[in-house]
Amino acid sequence: MTVTQPITPVVLSGGSGTRLWPVSRAECPKQFIALTAPQTMFELTLSRLDGLTGATPPVIVANAAHADIIRAQGSPDMTVILEPCARNTAPAIALAALALEAQDSAMLVMPSDHVITDVPAFHAAIERARALVAQGWLVTFGIEPDAPETGFGYIALGEALAPGVNRVARFVEKPDLARATAMLAQGGHVWNAGIFLFSARAFLDALATHQPEMLAAARRAIAEGTQADGTIRPSQDAFATCPSDSIDYAVMERAEKVACVPVSMGWSDVGSWDALYDLATKDTGGNALQGSAHAIEAERCLIRSDGPNVTVVGASDLIVIATGDEILILPRGRSQDVRKAVAALAERAPKP
Amino acid sequence: MTVTQPITPVVLSGGSGTRLWPVSRAECPKQFIALTAPQTMFELTLSRLDGLTGATPPVIVANAAHADIIRAQGSPDMTVILEPCARNTAPAIALAALALEAQDSAMLVMPSDHVITDVPAFHAAIERARALVAQGWLVTFGIEPDAPETGFGYIALGEALAPGVNRVARFVEKPDLARATAMLAQGGHVWNAGIFLFSARAFLDALATHQPEMLAAARRAIAEGTQADGTIRPSQDAFATCPSDSIDYAVMERAEKVACVPVSMGWSDVGSWDALYDLATKDTGGNALQGSAHAIEAERCLIRSDGPNVTVVGASDLIVIATGDEILILPRGRSQDVRKAVAALAERAPKP
Repeated sequence: MTVTQPITPVVLSGGSGTRLWPVSRAECPKQFIALTAPQTMFELTLSRLDGLTGATPPVIVANAAHADIIRAQGSPDMTVILEPCARNTAPAIALAALALEAQDSAMLVMPSDHVITDVPAFHAAIERARALVAQGWLVTFGIEPDAPETGFGYIALGEALAPGVNRVARFVEKPDLARATAMLAQGGHVWNAGIFLFSARAFLDALATHQPEMLAAARRAIAEGTQADGTIRPSQDAFATCPSDSIDYAVMERAEKVACVPVSMGWSDVGSWDALYDLATKDTGGNALQGSAHAIEAERCLIRSDGPNVTVVGASDLIVIATGDEILILPRGRSQDVRKAVAALAERAPKP
Repeated sequence: MTVTQPITPVVLSGGSGTRLWPVSRAECPKQFIALTAPQTMFELTLSRLDGLTGATPPVIVANAAHADIIRAQGSPDMTVILEPCARNTAPAIALAALALEAQDSAMLVMPSDHVITDVPAFHAAIERARALVAQGWLVTFGIEPDAPETGFGYIALGEALAPGVNRVARFVEKPDLARATAMLAQGGHVWNAGIFLFSARAFLDALATHQPEMLAAARRAIAEGTQADGTIRPSQDAFATCPSDSIDYAVMERAEKVACVPVSMGWSDVGSWDALYDLATKDTGGNALQGSAHAIEAERCLIRSDGPNVTVVGASDLIVIATGDEILILPRGRSQDVRKAVAALAERAPKP
């Protein structure tokens, strides 16, 4: 008889990205906003494990500033770890692994602000990974690329370890367009989506080997912190001494037993307004209208309003985003330039 | 010794146009809004007579619904005639002429929502007209055209009556583009801007001849109305019986002694957002930024906000108009399509 190892979703909610400004802001970043569905990205992430065999209540690792919104959007049985300061993904996952050390769950680490439209494909990919996870492998899920994206890191697939599971040959930094195009043509390369599955034990062992200082700081932060009512507050003094690094650099690129499950599951990091347009439901004119948004003789526009009525007449390929106090307008294809608007806003803001 | 006949500015504020929606609305139409300067169009109209010899305090003919805003933006010594219902320009001017009948002023009739950038040229044109006005002529000011506009009526100039003053040969309805182009090429045609100078007596005489029913209704409305504290409220019952017609159709096209003073004075009726863009001060990128408006790598845009911050990144030739609850976006050159947005809004509005 096979005993299925429990899987604990570990949702990382540390991001405060401004790529979806003005809707996404530091005080309420993208993951807490309903962008692609009536549910927020965080809520969609939590519900993505519904129906998976052996799934336990989730662990959320989040910015302490977002404690209230996490409680409002999360489930009553979740554990919330409130980071007193940001130290990138490896220390965040270390905190979760320490919280799960006693039960030795498999940790399904997921960013809180991605979209996966084909959830059965995701579950199937998880099932393919389970046997290797039980043997101590660190598994990453690699997205089958359909375009030469330059905004993601890539994973070069090595030998097959099991059906649909490969050893990781190497991690590839965000490439230029020529390199991305070559990888796409060559095959055997997938996008690194930042979704992982491994046992808490295996991850802590890898940390002990490759990042002993990080592990010690995280362990001290938990020991010197507080725990009550499902909320873990690591010690600020201890966690502040923790080196800051991503799981990729700190662990995955160094560990021995690292596998990848390639998967096509309608994944998107919704990393820009252009990406949201691509994901959105559109009218016959190709307009994606969200909230109080109106298109008259307009084509292929993304128009989103959380408040005022927005009416676009006779324009095409525009992105228009309106919140109560900020309105952003830019052509489709230029949504990476949102950062310029954010920078200009910071410039205008009264200095403290 | 020459006695200069006093000139009373008669400002018509009946318009409730929607061509500058969403800023201009029925409850606060264009003339009461600061569009081209820190002053509103109405305030600019009143101040346009400063320094003119013999100018008396003005008479305002306005929609009764705008009584408060007129008092707020006008001068303490003005007379305000509040129309109980709209009957077009001829009856509105008839009310003013009756109010001025005793003093027999020359009436300088002006719409309240036009721009004149070269005020000395306007004053000089008025001076050219004065002698003929004293002889009972009805004088209209014709704008020297600089483009084949199809949105205005034209005036064909006849024989010279005095230096810079011509008899009106005929009034020409709004032409198609071919006809407008032909008139521009031919010369001797000017735009009918709806600005007039005539004595109250001459206008009332012309009404008595050509529109006796209109004159009688206006006279009855004044007689049966109220007057107090500089405000004249004509009787609604009486004024409702008055035929509705424009001064052009009702009087100017019928009267005998009708003259035109051609003038170039930087006139605009600011009849569209495109027209406002043309008038506006622009930055080095050709962007007209009004209110909390920001252009980043944007060119030749009109961006106006009465409230929220509007940021346009990387777009060109856009019109963006933001008020508290409505945001309108359309390409430059399509501002006539504002009416489509207004119609769609009416369609969406809950039926009473």
